[in-house]
Amino acid sequence: YPTLHWSGFLQLDSGWVVADEETIDIVGDISSQFGLRRVRLRAGGRVRENASYVVDLDFAASGHPSFRDVALIFSDVPVIQNIEAGYFKQPYGMDAESSGRELLLLERMSPFALTPFRQTGVRAFGTFPHKSGTYAFSAYRFPTNAFGVSSGNNGGWGLATRETLLVVDLEDFLIHLGGGYTLINPSTDELQFSYEPGFFIGDPASPDSDSVPQFVNTGEIPTHTANYFNTELAFQWKCFRTQAEYRWTIVDRIGDSSVQFHAGYVQAGLMLTGEHAIYNRSRGIFSGVLPKRDFGDDEEDGFGAIELTGGLSHIDLNSKDIMGGSMTNFVAGLNWYLNDHARVVVNVIPVNLNNDGIEDARSLFFATRLQFEF
Amino acid sequence: YPTLHWSGFLQLDSGWVVADEETIDIVGDISSQFGLRRVRLRAGGRVRENASYVVDLDFAASGHPSFRDVALIFSDVPVIQNIEAGYFKQPYGMDAESSGRELLLLERMSPFALTPFRQTGVRAFGTFPHKSGTYAFSAYRFPTNAFGVSSGNNGGWGLATRETLLVVDLEDFLIHLGGGYTLINPSTDELQFSYEPGFFIGDPASPDSDSVPQFVNTGEIPTHTANYFNTELAFQWKCFRTQAEYRWTIVDRIGDSSVQFHAGYVQAGLMLTGEHAIYNRSRGIFSGVLPKRDFGDDEEDGFGAIELTGGLSHIDLNSKDIMGGSMTNFVAGLNWYLNDHARVVVNVIPVNLNNDGIEDARSLFFATRLQFEF
Amino acid sequence: YPTLHWSGFLQLDSGWVVADEETIDIVGDISSQFGLRRVRLRAGGRVRENASYVVDLDFAASGHPSFRDVALIFSDVPVIQNIEAGYFKQPYGMDAESSGRELLLLERMSPFALTPFRQTGVRAFGTFPHKSGTYAFSAYRFPTNAFGVSSGNNGGWGLATRETLLVVDLEDFLIHLGGGYTLINPSTDELQFSYEPGFFIGDPASPDSDSVPQFVNTGEIPTHTANYFNTELAFQWKCFRTQAEYRWTIVDRIGDSSVQFHAGYVQAGLMLTGEHAIYNRSRGIFSGVLPKRDFGDDEEDGFGAIELTGGLSHIDLNSKDIMGGSMTNFVAGLNWYLNDHARVVVNVIPVNLNNDGIEDARSLFFATRLQFEF
Repeated sequence: YPTLHWSGFLQLDSGWVVADEETIDIVGDISSQFGLRRVRLRAGGRVRENASYVVDLDFAASGHPSFRDVALIFSDVPVIQNIEAGYFKQPYGMDAESSGRELLLLERMSPFALTPFRQTGVRAFGTFPHKSGTYAFSAYRFPTNAFGVSSGNNGGWGLATRETLLVVDLEDFLIHLGGGYTLINPSTDELQFSYEPGFFIGDPASPDSDSVPQFVNTGEIPTHTANYFNTELAFQWKCFRTQAEYRWTIVDRIGDSSVQFHAGYVQAGLMLTGEHAIYNRSRGIFSGVLPKRDFGDDEEDGFGAIELTGGLSHIDLNSKDIMGGSMTNFVAGLNWYLNDHARVVVNVIPVNLNNDGIEDARSLFFATRLQFEF
Repeated sequence: YPTLHWSGFLQLDSGWVVADEETIDIVGDISSQFGLRRVRLRAGGRVRENASYVVDLDFAASGHPSFRDVALIFSDVPVIQNIEAGYFKQPYGMDAESSGRELLLLERMSPFALTPFRQTGVRAFGTFPHKSGTYAFSAYRFPTNAFGVSSGNNGGWGLATRETLLVVDLEDFLIHLGGGYTLINPSTDELQFSYEPGFFIGDPASPDSDSVPQFVNTGEIPTHTANYFNTELAFQWKCFRTQAEYRWTIVDRIGDSSVQFHAGYVQAGLMLTGEHAIYNRSRGIFSGVLPKRDFGDDEEDGFGAIELTGGLSHIDLNSKDIMGGSMTNFVAGLNWYLNDHARVVVNVIPVNLNNDGIEDARSLFFATRLQFEF
Repeated sequence: YPTLHWSGFLQLDSGWVVADEETIDIVGDISSQFGLRRVRLRAGGRVRENASYVVDLDFAASGHPSFRDVALIFSDVPVIQNIEAGYFKQPYGMDAESSGRELLLLERMSPFALTPFRQTGVRAFGTFPHKSGTYAFSAYRFPTNAFGVSSGNNGGWGLATRETLLVVDLEDFLIHLGGGYTLINPSTDELQFSYEPGFFIGDPASPDSDSVPQFVNTGEIPTHTANYFNTELAFQWKCFRTQAEYRWTIVDRIGDSSVQFHAGYVQAGLMLTGEHAIYNRSRGIFSGVLPKRDFGDDEEDGFGAIELTGGLSHIDLNSKDIMGGSMTNFVAGLNWYLNDHARVVVNVIPVNLNNDGIEDARSLFFATRLQFEF
């Protein structure tokens, strides 16, 4: 001790878009984009048997690099099992808990807009006996910038929790139930929710990038307190897997009535080559695929693994006088796992947008990804 | 050859502040801050037996990453022992020479404002026989930016030197004397001195961060030449250590009379668990603590090492028509060394500020740090 | 698998300049500069026997870090040998193909202004039988930013190819012929060409840096299509090597006649200590020197290797109403290779500039570099 080990992954994305005039009226011009979506380098290790650290940096993100998980973790803690302190993903949402390298589709679907995601805080987490489920409780600062710093005397904290349970746990058949809750008191006294339609490379929240614009957007809502709720349902039967989440957020506005936003998605994958997606029992998520025969493995005539994918999501950011818009996205796609460390992802994403008094604005994204993990 | 080895450390800080109205009148609002103070990754190694390099980056600093030591070092050089070229800490000040991971208190005290610190240059350094002391001479460019680059035809250079000597060198008893001098001719034809009170996370010199503000500040002073002087006294008797420095800077103003600024501090630590702080004879500084029993070491009922700490500093940036203010800081604290690689630091910092014609403005900082080295 | 290996290099540069009044009238004041020119860290490895990746970052470049090669490479591909996808140097120019750590002179000479260099794309490349030559074909996005991202619906693509051939291939005697072509349709609908005179540390294209200014500059030229042509000739006889390139670019202006720019250079090195520069047959470039006796190797009275260097370049950015200026640079220099991993470079660069209606403006740069590779 101490130990240090490097790992990481690269994602090279391409995306083309066709949008009707209504969509362009709402969001403005949309550019095709090509380039490096994520360039992640991660140093991690242990300073003692039960004390570890991680410094995970994304050099392609807008901070060049922005922090991903930068944290200290104590394991073997009595009763609560593990404690983590630093900048990490707050426990709320099965999609949020999944790493950017193990997503089923190209991006997390639109309900991800209602998620605190990475913030600086302290988290207790662990698994139930026989790893039949997971729990996590966190207290954090909000908002935290991309380098893990939060300032302010005016509130600026949150609480989050996520629990999951395998209610059916047979060899070929799993049913996962989960739920989450988070409470946020922002130090900025405002919250904003927005989303783009499932493909982007540059940061959609950055006005100076030539990025895919945000399709739905509430604008800034003055608030001291917001409550977020989430439910999860996932299911695996042999080579088929599906997961669905529904979440809603109640924002108590300052000097005004509260508003409420809703979003949900369902997504599924079918392995044509017969593999099972790995269900990670420590984290309560699906976590990648191990092909039976690697691509290029001549002796076994290997071609890797093929998964057909699909998804449907809806987000509604209209509530009372807040008219953030609503959007429905379909996704049809294909994942080609060349081996344990390389994959190709193709997604076709038809989008239906209602915003700015315009109904049924339509656009279509075609996007691909080449990913290497190391 | 060549070799390459990674190391680094993480600091997760929290700080709360209470300030009276006079303090807020002088410096404006002060926010509590939480987050990653330093995220340091360091690659170093040798290209030959006597030629080494280091690339030390701080991803939490304002350059994301800013350079720390990025330099080439030749050792075994006849007569002068070692030569270093690149971006490194100029040899001036016992506090400056101490790394951010081996400080006694949370931050270096206010006299650090009168220090050139890291600049691009060339340094000769070594130790006296029996490592009874150290010497260093440096020529450097000033000012150098956070990426090690300096431009300008209009002067832009400095000289620095630091010498230390162990005048008493017994097994349980050390007395260290030291001195330093630096001469600066800035290419910008101006110098500015400022300081915050001993806790900050975001860069206090950055106007757009929501950081702890600078409490004392001379503003820009037009100059071609400034002389900086420093004296050091340190002392270790068994588990007690103390160090004190006094420094003053004479700035020859362009078209005006010269001005002079003074600052000093004394700080001390008492190991309740009986350890000795390590005195680093090659660098002339105190350099960390090796606990007798690591925390969590069940066989030995280990709890780590505990050190009571305290400090007092004063800085006076008033001179003639320059009214930069004066500040006195006390610090009372506790360091808990869980093992050689992990520590917790707690500091309580009462501050007394005189500035802008207001006397005895008072504030109190309470700050903590969790540090892992790897 | 996967594997990950770190390497990198450091360059510490110093440059002084004397310029006549005419030069200052054209380009403004020129500052001396000191500091870190390149701080390169490179992680690379394999995810399978024939699939590798590289993440090469320059922390001293303006992106802090900017991307250098960030790409995925498939080797052992039938017929075309290798395929690379990501952000990399487009195959056009012997100088461009040479790494910043293996240049003969301090910087690439002025014809480098007419080069697409690093862009995001896909490349096929390989060598002819017996490694008697190289070929490369690439399709890419243009322009791509320093983090490998390109946006835009309005064109934004390019094609490039480079071929080289050893027409004479004897033990002590090589003649290399090469050619290249690239076609660019910029998504910004404009192209700009500019250059500084052979020494700089901060980015010359960045207006806010106190950098060496661009001496010749076309300004933005509205265009949908530009054709670039290049010819290469290189020659090695024992300890003497030389390489020359000539390139020209034809820009079809929007709503106006086409314009044409020309540039060429010749550079040579003579190893006084008898070594041969290494000709890299896989890449079609000269690639460093292996000293016979390392510096400091006492048994062999080693002093490293010494190479006298010289160069001459000319660039003409005047065409019809575009008056970008023309510049002639001489370089005389010396390379001292202490060992395989360390070198000192000294260049004296007299510059003759014609721009803004002023003829024969003269300036002289004196510049040095200390380089460690690891």
